[in-house]
Amino acid sequence: MGFSIKENILIDKIIEQALLEDIGTGDITSESIIPSNLKAKGIIKSSEEGVVAGLDVACLVFQKLDSEIIFQKKIKDGTKVTRGKVLAEITGPARTILKGERVALNFLQRISGIATITSKFCQEVKDFPVRILDTRKTTPGLRILEKYAVRMGGGYNHRFGLYDAVLIKDNHIAVAGGIKSAVNSVQKQISHMTKIEVEVENLSQLQEALEMKVDIIMLDNMNSDTMRKAVKIVKGKALIEASGGITLDNVREIAQTGVDLISIGCLTHSVKSLDISMEIKNVSRIS
Amino acid sequence: MGFSIKENILIDKIIEQALLEDIGTGDITSESIIPSNLKAKGIIKSSEEGVVAGLDVACLVFQKLDSEIIFQKKIKDGTKVTRGKVLAEITGPARTILKGERVALNFLQRISGIATITSKFCQEVKDFPVRILDTRKTTPGLRILEKYAVRMGGGYNHRFGLYDAVLIKDNHIAVAGGIKSAVNSVQKQISHMTKIEVEVENLSQLQEALEMKVDIIMLDNMNSDTMRKAVKIVKGKALIEASGGITLDNVREIAQTGVDLISIGCLTHSVKSLDISMEIKNVSRIS
Amino acid sequence: MGFSIKENILIDKIIEQALLEDIGTGDITSESIIPSNLKAKGIIKSSEEGVVAGLDVACLVFQKLDSEIIFQKKIKDGTKVTRGKVLAEITGPARTILKGERVALNFLQRISGIATITSKFCQEVKDFPVRILDTRKTTPGLRILEKYAVRMGGGYNHRFGLYDAVLIKDNHIAVAGGIKSAVNSVQKQISHMTKIEVEVENLSQLQEALEMKVDIIMLDNMNSDTMRKAVKIVKGKALIEASGGITLDNVREIAQTGVDLISIGCLTHSVKSLDISMEIKNVSRIS
Amino acid sequence: MGFSIKENILIDKIIEQALLEDIGTGDITSESIIPSNLKAKGIIKSSEEGVVAGLDVACLVFQKLDSEIIFQKKIKDGTKVTRGKVLAEITGPARTILKGERVALNFLQRISGIATITSKFCQEVKDFPVRILDTRKTTPGLRILEKYAVRMGGGYNHRFGLYDAVLIKDNHIAVAGGIKSAVNSVQKQISHMTKIEVEVENLSQLQEALEMKVDIIMLDNMNSDTMRKAVKIVKGKALIEASGGITLDNVREIAQTGVDLISIGCLTHSVKSLDISMEIKNVSRIS
Amino acid sequence: MGFSIKENILIDKIIEQALLEDIGTGDITSESIIPSNLKAKGIIKSSEEGVVAGLDVACLVFQKLDSEIIFQKKIKDGTKVTRGKVLAEITGPARTILKGERVALNFLQRISGIATITSKFCQEVKDFPVRILDTRKTTPGLRILEKYAVRMGGGYNHRFGLYDAVLIKDNHIAVAGGIKSAVNSVQKQISHMTKIEVEVENLSQLQEALEMKVDIIMLDNMNSDTMRKAVKIVKGKALIEASGGITLDNVREIAQTGVDLISIGCLTHSVKSLDISMEIKNVSRIS
Amino acid sequence: MGFSIKENILIDKIIEQALLEDIGTGDITSESIIPSNLKAKGIIKSSEEGVVAGLDVACLVFQKLDSEIIFQKKIKDGTKVTRGKVLAEITGPARTILKGERVALNFLQRISGIATITSKFCQEVKDFPVRILDTRKTTPGLRILEKYAVRMGGGYNHRFGLYDAVLIKDNHIAVAGGIKSAVNSVQKQISHMTKIEVEVENLSQLQEALEMKVDIIMLDNMNSDTMRKAVKIVKGKALIEASGGITLDNVREIAQTGVDLISIGCLTHSVKSLDISMEIKNVSRIS
Repeated sequence: MGFSIKENILIDKIIEQALLEDIGTGDITSESIIPSNLKAKGIIKSSEEGVVAGLDVACLVFQKLDSEIIFQKKIKDGTKVTRGKVLAEITGPARTILKGERVALNFLQRISGIATITSKFCQEVKDFPVRILDTRKTTPGLRILEKYAVRMGGGYNHRFGLYDAVLIKDNHIAVAGGIKSAVNSVQKQISHMTKIEVEVENLSQLQEALEMKVDIIMLDNMNSDTMRKAVKIVKGKALIEASGGITLDNVREIAQTGVDLISIGCLTHSVKSLDISMEIKNVSRIS
Repeated sequence: MGFSIKENILIDKIIEQALLEDIGTGDITSESIIPSNLKAKGIIKSSEEGVVAGLDVACLVFQKLDSEIIFQKKIKDGTKVTRGKVLAEITGPARTILKGERVALNFLQRISGIATITSKFCQEVKDFPVRILDTRKTTPGLRILEKYAVRMGGGYNHRFGLYDAVLIKDNHIAVAGGIKSAVNSVQKQISHMTKIEVEVENLSQLQEALEMKVDIIMLDNMNSDTMRKAVKIVKGKALIEASGGITLDNVREIAQTGVDLISIGCLTHSVKSLDISMEIKNVSRIS
Repeated sequence: MGFSIKENILIDKIIEQALLEDIGTGDITSESIIPSNLKAKGIIKSSEEGVVAGLDVACLVFQKLDSEIIFQKKIKDGTKVTRGKVLAEITGPARTILKGERVALNFLQRISGIATITSKFCQEVKDFPVRILDTRKTTPGLRILEKYAVRMGGGYNHRFGLYDAVLIKDNHIAVAGGIKSAVNSVQKQISHMTKIEVEVENLSQLQEALEMKVDIIMLDNMNSDTMRKAVKIVKGKALIEASGGITLDNVREIAQTGVDLISIGCLTHSVKSLDISMEIKNVSRIS
Repeated sequence: MGFSIKENILIDKIIEQALLEDIGTGDITSESIIPSNLKAKGIIKSSEEGVVAGLDVACLVFQKLDSEIIFQKKIKDGTKVTRGKVLAEITGPARTILKGERVALNFLQRISGIATITSKFCQEVKDFPVRILDTRKTTPGLRILEKYAVRMGGGYNHRFGLYDAVLIKDNHIAVAGGIKSAVNSVQKQISHMTKIEVEVENLSQLQEALEMKVDIIMLDNMNSDTMRKAVKIVKGKALIEASGGITLDNVREIAQTGVDLISIGCLTHSVKSLDISMEIKNVSRIS
Repeated sequence: MGFSIKENILIDKIIEQALLEDIGTGDITSESIIPSNLKAKGIIKSSEEGVVAGLDVACLVFQKLDSEIIFQKKIKDGTKVTRGKVLAEITGPARTILKGERVALNFLQRISGIATITSKFCQEVKDFPVRILDTRKTTPGLRILEKYAVRMGGGYNHRFGLYDAVLIKDNHIAVAGGIKSAVNSVQKQISHMTKIEVEVENLSQLQEALEMKVDIIMLDNMNSDTMRKAVKIVKGKALIEASGGITLDNVREIAQTGVDLISIGCLTHSVKSLDISMEIKNVSRIS
Repeated sequence: MGFSIKENILIDKIIEQALLEDIGTGDITSESIIPSNLKAKGIIKSSEEGVVAGLDVACLVFQKLDSEIIFQKKIKDGTKVTRGKVLAEITGPARTILKGERVALNFLQRISGIATITSKFCQEVKDFPVRILDTRKTTPGLRILEKYAVRMGGGYNHRFGLYDAVLIKDNHIAVAGGIKSAVNSVQKQISHMTKIEVEVENLSQLQEALEMKVDIIMLDNMNSDTMRKAVKIVKGKALIEASGGITLDNVREIAQTGVDLISIGCLTHSVKSLDISMEIKNVSRIS
């Protein structure tokens, strides 16, 4: 189910950069203390409840350092775990396991943190036919992983970047001299495979967007009442996305208005890492 | 004061990756709607109180897209601002300003978020001769910027990575068969320019580390009483770092124990972005 | 009008690779013969009729070698020119102009060749409300430029790659056990911003796709009669794309069937370069 | 026989770029529909007669995505095949085979297209001791593969770039003030391992070049009579290369003049891809 | 013992660059003459006495070209060998062995050359508790390998670059207006994990540095008498480093002064390669 | 005269790597002490007699850090200077000048060291019509600069790598079963623009190579008498290259034998850097 990590060249490069950043010219502590022929097992455990994701990334971190590392996943990405759950076991040279530990955990904790908060939002709205969406407010350089995390938490992805879908915002509308003219410019030039979304600030803009037959209409910072009216006006002729100021406290109320989509910047712009750690075991010298 | 951003080749590459990630094959919305000869001004403002940092990064984001962008900083990095404060003004092609907006803000909001939380910790301990430190629990790929953010918030940096200082942890000690033997291995091999820190879990380990004349001793998850005893035992013969489970609520109490350094993972592993936004103004066609 | 080249980081890297490939360790002919202080003017002309595109790429080729090169475009990309038309004038060091000549022309001739053939297809169907589309059958590494060329010739772009739109082909359908099940899997997982297209081989598959409310239906290698029937069945409930075996000879007939889109692999998989050349003039020593 | 592809680092990077370009953040169709544990076989066949080349590149495309792909070549590069011939069989995860298909075919079709047209030119002149040569008019970024394709079609390579041989053209001669002075400058500076070729436009320039003992003389756009005279004058004291306006219709006549080499830009600047396709078979779930 | 080469991503990139530089578009000699199915054994021998280092680098050179190469080390890095000693045996395709030979030897000879000269300096001072150090006067791009070579020769590394330790030199002191003010600026900003060294030109500067409690004091170009006085003044309160004009002739005299460290630029800025060569044996066709 | 440095993309990348290696996350000394608004002048001087080369590289080092640096060359590359000669003056931010100093000098000293030793060999043979050549025994990653240095010292370059000329060595001959068969294989496949050189170990091999009409014959480790005989046998029908064991002491004697070329590995495999240093002057705060 869902997009793969292992064969993705972009993720490979992200991991390489992260290892270069942390290890640079060498792990001077481990290389001084840990003999190169020492084998060990690393146990990765969750220290708190949450939804885990990113195990393939952690695996690739260690394998990039030494192709002979064996990394066994004990759960699938997207699994909700309780405190103490073993997530994976790593076998190989003790040095490599220690070298890769921090980078692997940094990835795993962040990706799991995002999956966990996303999952909480999804839980809140589980009684409604609405999707929880991410935004482009992601950590620079890690978008592909953060959008993966959102999916693993039960959410859905908005457009990936500026290149794969059209989102006409207030500034575009202002420059174009109105929604109609802005959408027109786009429709004439854009691929037939590309959807068009327009951000509206009031119901009259909503009307205008609807007439232009756009695919999605984003209600920017509207209150629940206005959203409900918007849903009635649109009547399924476009998807409706609620956006702006959404929290765990108000998301259920917003879902009740009947919108199709709820996009939430804080899924990725303000992340609390999930607490995950690694223990070393079974150290033994290779004969 | 402090490390520069503008001439740093690593940061240049981070920004390039971030732009590639977001813009990819092109900003299909702006390129369809905004004529290439349209000029505009972008005003970057803080939407909440906090410590701002990363303005040079934001500047480089826009200049990387078009070298003719003029970016005027209105404050220096490290300044505490109130809601509504103008941070910078950008003049140039409207398209470029819209293209770069999200990436610039993603950097600026995160860096400022870290500076802000760091500044809060520093404020708590301002009556004590103690440094607030970051850790290696940073976002993969952004460590150089996140450690810069910590400095701008008034904190200090711990080692940058595995390569520039020695930190002997429990796993190293276990493999080496004790602190003495671990430190010995390191001292024989390491550069005279490299400091050695040892993580200890109790006062008897502390004693052992002290005898080995290490530079810094990290007290791992000790309570305040034990820390106070540790400070008495060490008597300035090494720096003492408190680590593990430190929050805004308990940091002052820990500072009172007399430790020299307090390292805090959540400065960077669980960041709340500072709310910063951009408005477009003065749109005009270039004759 | 349309997507920009100058600020695109991907194109920058493509140009750098092309220069490395051709110049490598140095242009040993020019560097032995042409003094470094010699200035010249290069005149780029079309040697045959066609639609020209790629002038910004040619400009960047020379400026990458020496930032002081002045490159004056004499026409806009997308202009149809006759034999002998001057396209651009380049002023700067004679060495740089000679070094960059072949790479600049290699880009310009190919991009213009694609724009020219696209323009011929568009001309054939100009009386019908139909779009001429490219495919993913592009030259490895140059897709962004080849899709630009298609737009400059009056055509439109299909999806850019495997990542920005869904196209369910025969193999996907076979594995999923039918169109319904394939579309279902996708709809459950895919972003709301992503369109779904299904390739069908007969009218019963068409019916099935229509029931699944996909956005676009591709008619794979159907004859005109069947296409006409398909148009009647679909009645605007989805866009219809004709694909397979389309040539300048039959494209008008296909347009007449009422399909919305005609995709043509040979726009990019079998390109005849437009004949464009450069003359050197006004050689003078810089005092 | 001939230059290897599998160990070449440049080709590795070209393939990586091509995959990044097509797959980017992921193949959203296949990843939604094809389970990751599904195995399949892909059969690559030629859909028309021609000379096939590039099978190692196709192999590397799939193996770069997943190192466990098994790619069996059924013919050697440079083989002339008839319609329907199986060229290779690929076994591995169905997803990987579908992901890599288009990129692999894009390479294979272009390389085979160049090999095929080259082979036609070679066939025309097979009764004469003359070599068919390529030029630098190659696709930016793919020169190493296109020059390989020419060799596989029976042709030979001219210099690879500006760095590995000297070719003095009209502009160099004009700036230097004559062939003699141009050749002189070069001979004084150039490596003894580097050959020198001069482009001449008439028999008096030919005479001048001959006196300077250059290695090769290129006859630029001369008619057959003049070429015949040139061959008599040179009498084997230099190699003679015919260049400019050569087609399948006139190449035999030019070969009859007795020139040693015939260089043909359209081998690479105007390529018709060979029609090659892939079928998926034997889909089975991995237990 | 000590820092690893095999898992280092930086070294991987250095090797890749070196292969690209030498092999580029292909080894046209070997690829024309050596059939691809020919297997051979290469024997790497030292042609002179010295300390060998860099065997892992040589191994990676060959394995980067073909992962099936088997490379057997016959000695450990850091071993002193006599003329004729076999250092390693390589088994695999004859072409790959010939292709990689020069690059592998270029690395091995240089690294061994540095290890050898370092070892001579260490031998001279073996009766004294002093470390022989390298400097930043290394070959651009190869510092990580050259510093490894110094360690293998028995020496120690000074700071790796400008980023991992502070060294306050005359220019810094001049700008800051004295040692005190310079050290002060640094102490306020720098990480507690970073050591501070000050370069002094006379005993009064030494006094000043000592008062500022710096970690290391570098005596710049002092004579032995002054050094001896410096040692007495410092009395172990800082490490003392002798620097400037040190040769095999005077290093023992300097060691006798009681300094802790002696840094020597010529270990890396003026290297004589160790003479090492490769023979090919046991050529056989793979059936 | 000669190959350019400023426009070369390869050199640009070499410089970037060198700066990354030395500066990494920042120059923590200068950034702590030197205010960012301080301007200074750096004077680069030679501290010993020699031939200077690489000033453009030094210039690019500083400009890469800050595009506003002004670098004035006081001499041309290839100039012989006496001790104390000013080579260049640099004006700009004091921080940038201090940051770039070591990297710039590391390049300049090595390139000048190679130019200087080459110049000494050229001086020895100045009475004979013979060229002094380099080999492929260069520092990995720096070949383009080291070959430039050889030219600046008055020497000439042998082939650049394995890709731009054929050199058939003993191992190739052994595998092919003799010189005749080896040369034959090559001649059938290689570009007409590529020269062929054969290494011979005795006069009978020389005879065989001569019959195959190769371009250059390398005499491997022959004594002067045999070389003289070889010259008589060849009589100008090929160029003759002396190789192996050549020193400043015997190079004149070898030149006297009448060989055309003398190749010398130690020009680049065992380099003594030229002593060059930088002084800082005129420090002033920018108002």
